[in-house]
Amino acid sequence: MKIAVLGTGMVGKTIAHKLASLGHDVALGTRDPAATLAKTEPGAFGDPPVAAWLESAPGVAVATFADAVRDAALVFVATKGDATLAVLEGAGAALDGKIVVDISNPLDFSRGMPPRLFVSNDDSLGEQAQRAFPKAKIVKTLNIVSAPVMVAPSLLGEAQPTMFVSGNDADAKRQVTQVLTEWLGWEQVIDLGDITTARGTEMLLPLWVRAFGALGTPMFGFRLVR
Amino acid sequence: MKIAVLGTGMVGKTIAHKLASLGHDVALGTRDPAATLAKTEPGAFGDPPVAAWLESAPGVAVATFADAVRDAALVFVATKGDATLAVLEGAGAALDGKIVVDISNPLDFSRGMPPRLFVSNDDSLGEQAQRAFPKAKIVKTLNIVSAPVMVAPSLLGEAQPTMFVSGNDADAKRQVTQVLTEWLGWEQVIDLGDITTARGTEMLLPLWVRAFGALGTPMFGFRLVR
Repeated sequence: MKIAVLGTGMVGKTIAHKLASLGHDVALGTRDPAATLAKTEPGAFGDPPVAAWLESAPGVAVATFADAVRDAALVFVATKGDATLAVLEGAGAALDGKIVVDISNPLDFSRGMPPRLFVSNDDSLGEQAQRAFPKAKIVKTLNIVSAPVMVAPSLLGEAQPTMFVSGNDADAKRQVTQVLTEWLGWEQVIDLGDITTARGTEMLLPLWVRAFGALGTPMFGFRLVR
Repeated sequence: MKIAVLGTGMVGKTIAHKLASLGHDVALGTRDPAATLAKTEPGAFGDPPVAAWLESAPGVAVATFADAVRDAALVFVATKGDATLAVLEGAGAALDGKIVVDISNPLDFSRGMPPRLFVSNDDSLGEQAQRAFPKAKIVKTLNIVSAPVMVAPSLLGEAQPTMFVSGNDADAKRQVTQVLTEWLGWEQVIDLGDITTARGTEMLLPLWVRAFGALGTPMFGFRLVR
């Protein structure tokens, strides 16, 4: 399948690598491919620059946001939250009718650590994206765990965490759930409801950040137990 | 131990009943004891009126907030969030130096369901309580599960959820953790840090509410898995 992964940070590269390893044709979307490929500095998490990383990721090509989305059957948004709407704007009408898996979180680091959320409570980034692109089928998911856990939830030895999906289109959520279970290995996926339920998973981030601080590792998740 | 439980709703009665069953001397605090005891209507969750319920709860006495707190070695705040500060005001200086376990959540139902939070992101109800009563030792905990799970986490067959504690006083958190583990049966308690980390657990409520809607039962919790 042709898949666009928008964003070249830790999350984008991790998702793109996993999907390519499954045999998919992945376009890694960025604002300026030449500038992205010219970078020689590591990323914010010590992740390798894209040009060097591509050598370990056959099946991934770098493209503009619009080019990445144009031919894609499935789109992942793996940008920083404050870039999400602008990145989707870069893809524009190419998003119409497509399933857009929104992994981004509305984290605001402008007042230092720990981050605040720049939208919460009455609204969410997922809803903002859905309102801005009403013909896209936004599905919020994967935003509540770190990148390595997103593509390999079984890395957590104790038990798998739970993943949630939020979105207005039932068929899109079904397809994304299939991607989560069959491609990424998630065993417990819960449909929370329409895109307004993205408030719930985005507002989990403050707890995630503090638990990260208390545990000293991002290798954890939350399992809904009954 | 003499314990005050402030609030006569489902949470207050459940906590009071459990503590009394362990042999503690529990004062159930309310604004107007005579009015509370005169009620014959069930509570918001179909829970019995206090007068009838007291027959099943030997060891519990009804008292004003101030009287309940005066002799208590430990205080639980089990009020609706929008009443928390006023209820603590009712106890006043009697709170000084005491450990105050704040279970309340800043839920705002004024715009209908699902509730919003009336404080979040930059602040929390736990912090508001600590600022208003700087000599009390506020510990935020138990606010992320339903009342039956609070006092019997092993009711969940699959595995126990995780409980978090937030507070500025390390010794108070240690004592509350002991209450959670030895009296209430919690196996996994994580210290998130100072009282500002109450933002994290209070902001879990929007996800809790949506998961409650998706599952159709309040008998669940979130386990931190690694």
